[in-house]
Amino acid sequence: MASNNDLIAVNTIRTLAADVVSKSNSGHPGAPMGMAPAAHVLWTRHLNFSSKNPKWYNRDRFVLSNGHACVLQYIMLHLSGYKVSMDDLKSFRQIDSITPGHPELGVTEGIEVTTGPLGQGISNAVGLAIAQAHLGAVFNKDGYNIIDNHTYVFLGDGCLQEGVASEACSLAGHLKLANLIAIYDDNKITIDGDTAVSFTEDVELRFKSYGWNVLHVENGDEDYEAIEKAISAAQKNSSAPTIINLKTTIGYGSLKAGGHDVHGAPLKKDDLIQLKKKFGFNPDETFAVPQETTDLYKATAEKGAKKEAAWNDLFKSYAEKYPLEASELTRRMEGRLPEGWEKALPTYSTSDAAVGSRKLSETTITKLVEVLPELMGGSADLTGSNLTRWKGADDFQHPSTGLGHYGGRYIRFGVREHGMVAICNGMAAYGGIIPFSATFLNFVSYAAGAVRLSALSHLRVLNVATHDSIGLGEDGPTHQPVETAAWLRAVPNLAFWRPADGNETSATYLVAILSQHTPSVMAFSRQNLPQLQNSSIEKATKGGYVLDDIENPDLTIVSTGSEVPLCVEAAKLLKEKGIKTRIVSMPCIEVFNSQDTKYKLSVLPSGAPVLSVEAYSTFGWGSLSHDHFGLKAWGASGPFDKVYAKFDMTPEGIAKRGEKVVAFYKKRGQPVFSPLISALDDITE
Amino acid sequence: MASNNDLIAVNTIRTLAADVVSKSNSGHPGAPMGMAPAAHVLWTRHLNFSSKNPKWYNRDRFVLSNGHACVLQYIMLHLSGYKVSMDDLKSFRQIDSITPGHPELGVTEGIEVTTGPLGQGISNAVGLAIAQAHLGAVFNKDGYNIIDNHTYVFLGDGCLQEGVASEACSLAGHLKLANLIAIYDDNKITIDGDTAVSFTEDVELRFKSYGWNVLHVENGDEDYEAIEKAISAAQKNSSAPTIINLKTTIGYGSLKAGGHDVHGAPLKKDDLIQLKKKFGFNPDETFAVPQETTDLYKATAEKGAKKEAAWNDLFKSYAEKYPLEASELTRRMEGRLPEGWEKALPTYSTSDAAVGSRKLSETTITKLVEVLPELMGGSADLTGSNLTRWKGADDFQHPSTGLGHYGGRYIRFGVREHGMVAICNGMAAYGGIIPFSATFLNFVSYAAGAVRLSALSHLRVLNVATHDSIGLGEDGPTHQPVETAAWLRAVPNLAFWRPADGNETSATYLVAILSQHTPSVMAFSRQNLPQLQNSSIEKATKGGYVLDDIENPDLTIVSTGSEVPLCVEAAKLLKEKGIKTRIVSMPCIEVFNSQDTKYKLSVLPSGAPVLSVEAYSTFGWGSLSHDHFGLKAWGASGPFDKVYAKFDMTPEGIAKRGEKVVAFYKKRGQPVFSPLISALDDITE
Repeated sequence: MASNNDLIAVNTIRTLAADVVSKSNSGHPGAPMGMAPAAHVLWTRHLNFSSKNPKWYNRDRFVLSNGHACVLQYIMLHLSGYKVSMDDLKSFRQIDSITPGHPELGVTEGIEVTTGPLGQGISNAVGLAIAQAHLGAVFNKDGYNIIDNHTYVFLGDGCLQEGVASEACSLAGHLKLANLIAIYDDNKITIDGDTAVSFTEDVELRFKSYGWNVLHVENGDEDYEAIEKAISAAQKNSSAPTIINLKTTIGYGSLKAGGHDVHGAPLKKDDLIQLKKKFGFNPDETFAVPQETTDLYKATAEKGAKKEAAWNDLFKSYAEKYPLEASELTRRMEGRLPEGWEKALPTYSTSDAAVGSRKLSETTITKLVEVLPELMGGSADLTGSNLTRWKGADDFQHPSTGLGHYGGRYIRFGVREHGMVAICNGMAAYGGIIPFSATFLNFVSYAAGAVRLSALSHLRVLNVATHDSIGLGEDGPTHQPVETAAWLRAVPNLAFWRPADGNETSATYLVAILSQHTPSVMAFSRQNLPQLQNSSIEKATKGGYVLDDIENPDLTIVSTGSEVPLCVEAAKLLKEKGIKTRIVSMPCIEVFNSQDTKYKLSVLPSGAPVLSVEAYSTFGWGSLSHDHFGLKAWGASGPFDKVYAKFDMTPEGIAKRGEKVVAFYKKRGQPVFSPLISALDDITE
Repeated sequence: MASNNDLIAVNTIRTLAADVVSKSNSGHPGAPMGMAPAAHVLWTRHLNFSSKNPKWYNRDRFVLSNGHACVLQYIMLHLSGYKVSMDDLKSFRQIDSITPGHPELGVTEGIEVTTGPLGQGISNAVGLAIAQAHLGAVFNKDGYNIIDNHTYVFLGDGCLQEGVASEACSLAGHLKLANLIAIYDDNKITIDGDTAVSFTEDVELRFKSYGWNVLHVENGDEDYEAIEKAISAAQKNSSAPTIINLKTTIGYGSLKAGGHDVHGAPLKKDDLIQLKKKFGFNPDETFAVPQETTDLYKATAEKGAKKEAAWNDLFKSYAEKYPLEASELTRRMEGRLPEGWEKALPTYSTSDAAVGSRKLSETTITKLVEVLPELMGGSADLTGSNLTRWKGADDFQHPSTGLGHYGGRYIRFGVREHGMVAICNGMAAYGGIIPFSATFLNFVSYAAGAVRLSALSHLRVLNVATHDSIGLGEDGPTHQPVETAAWLRAVPNLAFWRPADGNETSATYLVAILSQHTPSVMAFSRQNLPQLQNSSIEKATKGGYVLDDIENPDLTIVSTGSEVPLCVEAAKLLKEKGIKTRIVSMPCIEVFNSQDTKYKLSVLPSGAPVLSVEAYSTFGWGSLSHDHFGLKAWGASGPFDKVYAKFDMTPEGIAKRGEKVVAFYKKRGQPVFSPLISALDDITE
């Protein structure tokens, strides 16, 4: 039975939620008030955490997938002793507070992943669960369950409607991730009103179809024991993830309870007064936390600290018995890379064969998995095209399938791009793993919602993106990215790489792995590319560098990936016409832009016009070049060389344009300034 | 029982598919060979089409959601008398052929929607089914089922794994779209091998959870009668969409049948020979079509032509009895807009109130639905925030729900952005409807895969995108688009609009609706914006125009949306410092770029530096301005005015930057050329 103290605590959470939203005059009180019992039961009776050491590695992970309800999470963190003060609650949704409008990883201690964009949290949770399952399989020993935490998720109707959640949950069922426990806030209300207007599917049946363990709590408002029992039953299930369908009343206690008016707006004043009276609180008092609740959560926090202490003892004993494993796990928990790992990166010279850069990527991955056991990932059902599976790889699969085991590092994501990247976000957030995804560059767009959150959350996720242009040929314009590079380059804190050869491919992986707080999308060609003269890993790590220099140039051509060798050929044609051409290879604009001004101006100096060449939309090249040769619209279906020829993107076509640009600026007879020059960025000639 | 002629025809399709892929040495023979029986039965016994008039309005729509199997569709079109010749089949996947690597709307007669990117076709089909249900409800009369076609879909495992399909299929179940019949090619093979590696959900149970009618054919390779019976049963079901789980063998007949080797590569030579022998074909002959098959399909085509003739008669009689309805339906079938509809667009003057442009959008929609009965759409569960539902709107719902009816024009899409836009693509492809979607601008990214296909397919889909910047305030960076505008501007044939006031909002809708072959994303503010002096619908339809001119300017500021009024204020501050500033409002770069050079240079002439101001990533402004003021990274959570102040995006902050730019160019003392100047585009000063 729920004690009186439980009731007081739950009502404290409810009134606090109403007060916080009321003070900020912005936010969502409804779900926090409805989910307060579940939060309270989970926190005080199940969740393993250590609020004084929020990064304790074997803590349970809690994800609020319905991130708009974050008042609830901030309150729970506050009550449990995390660094979220009452003043922080009072500055909810205010500039530079640690309690922003939706939970953000890195902003608030105790927030495991960034949520709010619906469907992401539950998908991140699948990644957190994969990470636990994998690390447990790798490091646990008989009697030493060093890594055995659960991942708990709250989610609402909105999350369940999103396709990304369908993808991730279907995969979670396939993988039988029993360490994942989701609590579905079945309150029948969305912003548009009753779920009857758009969401009438049978959620329980759907999750059964995915292979989940489905439980049900009829009275999530008051029946705390049923909630506890359901969570306990979920913990005991060892063969499938669990979803608990928890019937709740949105805005429980409010005059508007059960309706959508209470979803995303503060309670009216009279409503707030009656709420507090109803729950036995002083209506004149705000932000009240009764002593009983303070005490209860203090005890909870102490319980958590003890659990951490016990784990520390266990780990100490583990370290004595398994010193190598303990040292390796410590390294991974601390996020340190193995000494000298980068020596595994292959280097190339011009005598090496011309191959597709997807093949170069395969070679690199194959080398890296040997030295980086934390590298783990897979493809969205394009393994044979993305070339992401190394020889001897074990699949990450439930052992009962006979297809792999949880210690396996290759993930079969299925045709689920959005879920894949959201899952990788969760794996990266867990720590100790460097996750990678793979698909065609064009279909990274399907994952746009998750890619931006990798970047916003500062998560090192590597995205292998092969078939990166019209160079994929026959599949045609439905599969040929044109706009994708521009989009990715505009995402803050995201590195979009498009290496031109083997050395640049190694540089791509080098920087992507060293960038501990930045995701990368790495575009690789299907078609063969020669190994360039003058390329090197070191030069390419600058993002952009001079590949072919010449004194007193008439023209600089800047290009990326598979077009760089075409430009090298074009320069030879231009030379025959007496035009001296420098070639700049620019595998990553984001990284190039982060170099110092002097270096950047040495690559793209004033003096000669700069022509950019890339088989994409030219959008965005205006800041790096004076004129731009690219695609005006979509690609075409045909053998790749004929597609390039159709768009005149050949050495001859490039040379023709180079000539035109040189003639234009000669005729103008004015000084030509570097395109990098900017008054606002203080870049002067 | 299947006749011998059926067998011959099916084997003709199979050998043709193998021959086509073999000749092109590229493509996917497996699914066409496996799905040949279903295609044959559907085409010859169920599908209503008129190959000599592929646009016959009441034809059944066929969608190949697994678009990589398009050899099958091209063969069916060829056999049925469409303009797809044997030579066209022979130039499969060759440059400029009408048989590209994946089916493209507008390229090949008889292709209803562009497919290949997985999950899109089935979602388009939901839109096609909505369109039929709606137009039938509006125009059909007792005894006159003028609009009563079915939509048939083939789809594979890949489509079912994609989240977009989950979203659309869940909604289709909710809407009880009985006119939709999907045939699932359950061949247990994906690119990565057996579906056992990643896709083990119970598909039948999942579709039951969505409320679909689920049928099952155990032997899809040989049991033609079971296929026919299933389709007939589906047609008779009037309460739900149907999915037929059809067990097939991928690459049926090949030595590699049942394996993934036959998925995406040509058959080996010996395999091709044994295939033809096995099916009683001459192994030395390629592209053979036996006379029996030619005759059978000729008869099928004639049957179809008769159906069209009968429909024409019915429509004639309908037109006599219901002349107004017939004339209106004719107008909509022909895609003509009603005379003078554009007069409904509101105009504004500076005395009108400052309101959020989402509110201006609401006003415009409210006016337009009166004069444009083809305007139909809704929101992804953000109706109250997007302000897309007009007073008196009826919801598009199955009448049994009591919440609306199929004649309703307001769609409750649920939290399903990707499905929503893909559904709108289907509705637009049906014809007679101008669909609109709505969500926050940030979440248009979730629909990226469908948005690019609107553009590639030349479909007029209007996307209302409110909460378009940091101006949404408290929700914070998880909801504030920074990179989204750059992405959308880089998509060919897509108009990204960001109007600054009421007149520009009217212009946005005017151009979006007049652009019959171009989708639009229309970004609207949450925060209030004043009505600008000098704005007009006519000027704004140019995409960019001079809002405030001045002789001998020192500076031009170009801006969009909610930042334009800030720039107007900044210009006043600059004037106090003696700096003469022109203001250019640029609501749509795509449309501005399509103006003639003379006009463009009149807006952004040489002489004075141009500074762009926009609360987004500055990526892409390099082609329109010399210096750029925007966001370096993500937004922030807080009241909107404080968020703007945090990033110094205020009249003062803009003026400060304007001053700096002017000083820089004065100091340099060189002529300042228009940023539009391009040697390659022949834009000279």
